[in-house]
Amino acid sequence: MTFAVGVDLGGTNLRVAAVRENGELLERVTTGTKVSRSRDAVIDEMTAAIRRLSSTYGANERLVGVGIGVPGILDAHSGTLRESPNLPGWSDYPVRAEIERRLGHRVVLENDANAAAMGEAWLGSARHAHSMAIITLGTGIGGGMVTYGKAWQGSRGMAGEFGHIVIDPEGPRCNCGNRGCAEQFASATAVVRMAREMAERGEAPALARAIAQQSVAFCSRRVHDFAIAGDGPAQAIFGKVGWALGILLSDLINALNLEVYVIGGGVAAAWDAFAPQMFAELRRRSFIYKATAPEDTETWLNGAAPAAATEAPRTMVVRAALGSDAGLYGAARLALEI
Amino acid sequence: MTFAVGVDLGGTNLRVAAVRENGELLERVTTGTKVSRSRDAVIDEMTAAIRRLSSTYGANERLVGVGIGVPGILDAHSGTLRESPNLPGWSDYPVRAEIERRLGHRVVLENDANAAAMGEAWLGSARHAHSMAIITLGTGIGGGMVTYGKAWQGSRGMAGEFGHIVIDPEGPRCNCGNRGCAEQFASATAVVRMAREMAERGEAPALARAIAQQSVAFCSRRVHDFAIAGDGPAQAIFGKVGWALGILLSDLINALNLEVYVIGGGVAAAWDAFAPQMFAELRRRSFIYKATAPEDTETWLNGAAPAAATEAPRTMVVRAALGSDAGLYGAARLALEI
Repeated sequence: MTFAVGVDLGGTNLRVAAVRENGELLERVTTGTKVSRSRDAVIDEMTAAIRRLSSTYGANERLVGVGIGVPGILDAHSGTLRESPNLPGWSDYPVRAEIERRLGHRVVLENDANAAAMGEAWLGSARHAHSMAIITLGTGIGGGMVTYGKAWQGSRGMAGEFGHIVIDPEGPRCNCGNRGCAEQFASATAVVRMAREMAERGEAPALARAIAQQSVAFCSRRVHDFAIAGDGPAQAIFGKVGWALGILLSDLINALNLEVYVIGGGVAAAWDAFAPQMFAELRRRSFIYKATAPEDTETWLNGAAPAAATEAPRTMVVRAALGSDAGLYGAARLALEI
Repeated sequence: MTFAVGVDLGGTNLRVAAVRENGELLERVTTGTKVSRSRDAVIDEMTAAIRRLSSTYGANERLVGVGIGVPGILDAHSGTLRESPNLPGWSDYPVRAEIERRLGHRVVLENDANAAAMGEAWLGSARHAHSMAIITLGTGIGGGMVTYGKAWQGSRGMAGEFGHIVIDPEGPRCNCGNRGCAEQFASATAVVRMAREMAERGEAPALARAIAQQSVAFCSRRVHDFAIAGDGPAQAIFGKVGWALGILLSDLINALNLEVYVIGGGVAAAWDAFAPQMFAELRRRSFIYKATAPEDTETWLNGAAPAAATEAPRTMVVRAALGSDAGLYGAARLALEI
């Protein structure tokens, strides 16, 4: 058996894992190193963890490669980061060459959203699909797409910005310069903004009290708690999330006709609160979805699959299965391919 | 030199061409056969034209294959048409097998929009690009996308329905069941509808007179004539076309980061009337476009390219170069690849 080492630089902490070619996890290391520390400290810690895992498991199995998921825009050819708001000091630094020099081993770099897409495509909710996209609902909305077994990077490494697809051309302004982006309706930030707006307008008394008590600590999970407890305004907010995701998915399905669309990130935990509106909107808006996702698709897809394989691939919208590990597994998968 | 035969079943008349592997046209045949005639009559005529071209040019050069662009949804594996509103009687008929049987030669079938994409990618406006999409503005809006040198068909052969991407979630109803689709703002049908609506509201006196004179014959080209002549309401209609195309392109660029986006179809003839608003909207809405298409891109892209090659690929939005021949060349190209 062979194995690869995957690294996830996308989160808050640096995480490293050894993963067998069949997807079996040998070991996962979550270092105390904050990704926001100095570049050299992060690279030191990373190479030390990779060396330890490769010597532990390399005794009996062959290490085929190292894959690293990195937040930001990559230049795949040169192995440098073009732009990375979360990794100050890394831009235009020869990341890949430097890590390869220290390890004496070939390294694959990939954007963290694409790594997450590869992870879900390999071992997660899209593991039987020939094509898929992931939509990650976090502080912002990220995305990645896998076709022909490969992450589609785009001509400049910028593909997958699904969060900036227009939902409402006259909607709220977005940091990107656009208006009414999906990110303004379905990210954790948007959930909190909508809650604050409703509270200010006097439309959400319970949310207003919670905001007054928690102030800056008030987060989208709290809005979800209220929705679960039956609070109407909180439920309406997730209804809006579902509405926006329905339009976003309808756009992606009509344009791309991929097989599986995976919804991940923190806000995906509120699936039960937004999925009904999402599916209703999607079925109304996308004739391709309607033609390729029979009614029962939405009921079984988050439970057991039907006994018999269907003749033609269905279009499926599902929750992510690997949580924050998707990028870690995906990074390892990339290394297994070189 | 080798050559292929391309067939375009997508238009009104059946067209067949012999094309060399270097893209040189040997001969193009436009038969009198209406595609709307009986299936067997069309297939007889098609195979006769293919046979004639292959015997004429096959004497000195080798025929490598036959490619056929077909309107409708294809099952690529079985070589049948799943659905084709414009070809009644063709559904679930083994098109490919039947034509192969008659010709004694392998045949490639492709959706006509994908064939047009391949044509523009091979010999047209996207001929130097590694990835591209075409948006065809006709009665409706069609589309196709080429990545890794191949047309992306989608998991069920339905990819490329760019005309049904949502521009305004509360916009006009579309035949597809959705609301505010791009097709409702930027197709020839939409141009005529907007003209009639403005005329009815008394906002477009000159257009109203033309509509009264021409009645059913009133078409989008007429609205374009008025726009060229300086008619404000007609210019506003093409402004709306540009607005919608700007949003549509912004969505595609943010999601896919392809290199070239080709605008084709009849309405593309009104390029000068809608392009300024299209580019303005695009530059405002897509941060990826802004980052990858320096200001001068829009000025030189419909003229000569700059003398020096740019270091990284620009994002370019350009007019189609091959007109209605794109599908014919694209079909031939597909046959050259088997």
